[in-house]
Amino acid sequence: MSEMNAIGGRQQQVSLGEEIVSRINALAAISETPDHLARIFLTNEHRVAADLILGWMRSAGMRAHLDAIGNVCGRYEGERQGLPCEGLPCLMLGSHYDTVRDAGKWDGPLGLLTAISCVADLNRRGRRSPFAIEVTGFADEEGVRFASTLLGSRAVAGTFDESVLNVRDADGIPMREALRTFGLDPDHIGAAARARRELLAYLELHIEQGPVLEQENLPVGVVTAIAGATRLAARLSGMAGHAGTVPMAMRRDALTGAAECIGAIEEFCRTDTDGLVGTVGYIHAMPGATNVIPGQVSFTIDIRAPTDAHRKLAVTDIVRRIEAIAKRRHLSLQLDVTHENRTVPCALWLKAQVADAIAGEGFRVFELPSGAGHDGMAMIDVADVGMIFVRCRGGISHHPDEHVELADVDAGARVLLRLIENFTPRDAVG
Amino acid sequence: MSEMNAIGGRQQQVSLGEEIVSRINALAAISETPDHLARIFLTNEHRVAADLILGWMRSAGMRAHLDAIGNVCGRYEGERQGLPCEGLPCLMLGSHYDTVRDAGKWDGPLGLLTAISCVADLNRRGRRSPFAIEVTGFADEEGVRFASTLLGSRAVAGTFDESVLNVRDADGIPMREALRTFGLDPDHIGAAARARRELLAYLELHIEQGPVLEQENLPVGVVTAIAGATRLAARLSGMAGHAGTVPMAMRRDALTGAAECIGAIEEFCRTDTDGLVGTVGYIHAMPGATNVIPGQVSFTIDIRAPTDAHRKLAVTDIVRRIEAIAKRRHLSLQLDVTHENRTVPCALWLKAQVADAIAGEGFRVFELPSGAGHDGMAMIDVADVGMIFVRCRGGISHHPDEHVELADVDAGARVLLRLIENFTPRDAVG
Repeated sequence: MSEMNAIGGRQQQVSLGEEIVSRINALAAISETPDHLARIFLTNEHRVAADLILGWMRSAGMRAHLDAIGNVCGRYEGERQGLPCEGLPCLMLGSHYDTVRDAGKWDGPLGLLTAISCVADLNRRGRRSPFAIEVTGFADEEGVRFASTLLGSRAVAGTFDESVLNVRDADGIPMREALRTFGLDPDHIGAAARARRELLAYLELHIEQGPVLEQENLPVGVVTAIAGATRLAARLSGMAGHAGTVPMAMRRDALTGAAECIGAIEEFCRTDTDGLVGTVGYIHAMPGATNVIPGQVSFTIDIRAPTDAHRKLAVTDIVRRIEAIAKRRHLSLQLDVTHENRTVPCALWLKAQVADAIAGEGFRVFELPSGAGHDGMAMIDVADVGMIFVRCRGGISHHPDEHVELADVDAGARVLLRLIENFTPRDAVG
Repeated sequence: MSEMNAIGGRQQQVSLGEEIVSRINALAAISETPDHLARIFLTNEHRVAADLILGWMRSAGMRAHLDAIGNVCGRYEGERQGLPCEGLPCLMLGSHYDTVRDAGKWDGPLGLLTAISCVADLNRRGRRSPFAIEVTGFADEEGVRFASTLLGSRAVAGTFDESVLNVRDADGIPMREALRTFGLDPDHIGAAARARRELLAYLELHIEQGPVLEQENLPVGVVTAIAGATRLAARLSGMAGHAGTVPMAMRRDALTGAAECIGAIEEFCRTDTDGLVGTVGYIHAMPGATNVIPGQVSFTIDIRAPTDAHRKLAVTDIVRRIEAIAKRRHLSLQLDVTHENRTVPCALWLKAQVADAIAGEGFRVFELPSGAGHDGMAMIDVADVGMIFVRCRGGISHHPDEHVELADVDAGARVLLRLIENFTPRDAVG
């Protein structure tokens, strides 16, 4: 039974937003440590959270079970010709319910709990669609425990890499053993995989984790793509020297060289008008003493863009600029790609339906890319992907200050509900 | 008795350079650890080195003693009207015999041992001047043990700060106790102080510790001044954020701000034609993750110039530029002066005599400032200061690769010897 307020014998329905926020708080209480939210894959907190969510799914009228990797899976059947009908393809809604360490409580759970509340609302009203609705809560998106992300959605997409089963956590426990301890069979993760024909689409609502919607003064937005990323590790080597005795013209200062590279990356990305972002997040200068000219500097570069072609061109251009800076300054350069993620574009037909739902709720339709990764990056292998972003305060995420206003939770829920009720499978789209 | 080679019963004098190099090597063997040269103030190595040097001083015809702070002090009397005469004012030569950790063997000892060898040469030839010659080996210039530099020369200059006696080393031993253990009386350090009337000048020969003489293809140079230094600690604070979700235009990236500051400092110093140098040696970006925009960056700035006025103007200008960068980027800035050393100009009349000696030995006269600190910075309080630089390979210092060619050691010794023999006290300079 969903939460109701019994007032003088009359039951008054709480708003979707209120229900979602109360459940967000309930889920946030399930944490490794009480002061710093951390809900990690295959832990006791994972188990307790899963049981709670499965209960909410069932009270929303869904059949619900834990799948072979620990995802929570709920299914609300559709109907054909006014009659309940099993085996229909589904619209899958979802997000993850694991967290980073010292996390905010909205990243992941908001999308999952909004989906459950939407189904609960349909169920209360006795509404069924000509397709099934499934809600999946992915057990691991953040990848905290085994340093490999999207484990839950990869299992569903059928792209789970079995070699990860041998990866050990910080305590030396291999994932294979952790799965067994949790009560899952590491040899049957394949059972979680879904077939493309079973899924009409994968739709995810998620907090933006950035400041754009706040700046646009909008509660929700249409995601255009999950931006691909290229990460590089750069090392510039010059000549260390005494800060007092080496004239400026005779220096081969690795840090002034790195500073010029950082400036060039920023300038290059700033002048781009198609959503390119470039970040140097880490830098280390050696030997690192006040009175010594740095002889070597290491730094990282993270480049993201809404299309792969755009990102790859940008990486090529940025690398060329860095090489030119190193050459002109007589610094030796080592530059390695350490990570590369393709861009996952949201399907045009899904973007159109998300936009219609947003407009239908009276909000201006605004498109933005997702710079952060999401389960859609794995789900693209088994379904077309669409995403709705909900504004979060100050763009802050992965931090206890992560916050979403109740009104925005409510707006997101109404948009998702409208989207579900008006959903038209691709084959039926004109 | 100085080193002689007995060949077939006949004694053949080794060159000054050979004598100095052999003693450099003997002194380098006195180290805390055999593989990494470290000879630290008030240690057993200090004691062993002092005894060895006192012996060399005595064999050079000097009276020699350890003073109240652990400096080795040798005195070679002058003569008046052909007769030995005590109590004459002295020309003081000197340098230090402590080292940094993992040091080179030339920084300090070259000047001290060259001075002793010059006096030994005068003594062998029965030459005396109308003034005394003193050689002082300072016990602590580097300040490794108590993080306070120039302890030996400050004691001689009468500017020793007694509060340093309470400073503890890394093992928690206060300097006061270390002095007692060494056999010195911490309550009588004042006894090491010399009066201005006793000193005609303080002259120091030292390795350059920079690459300028090597580039000029010269074994020796005239030092114009020991450059003053201002050190600042800067902290820029912006807003941390996800490297993927915050558009370039909405960022307050503390690291791109710091990079612009580093570039501005380099540019400002590079375009200066009067020996200004500026260095950012240390930088730390927080949180320091590949995929997080740095919210805060700390870095150091070290500014040196041959005159105080020039340095102070430069610091003011650089601070103004950094403030403008911070303001334009909406970063908050904290900027503190952590250290300030005045410039110690070498006396014109001493520079002239150093130049004459260099020219007299057939070398082109070349002037350069000292970017590194030296005992002259303390000795200026009790005497006019002159300095001779000797070329060191690649400008490398404070490193085991520190090296001086025998020919350059010899050149330095011949210049110093000529300088001593032709030395004219200031009052007698026309």
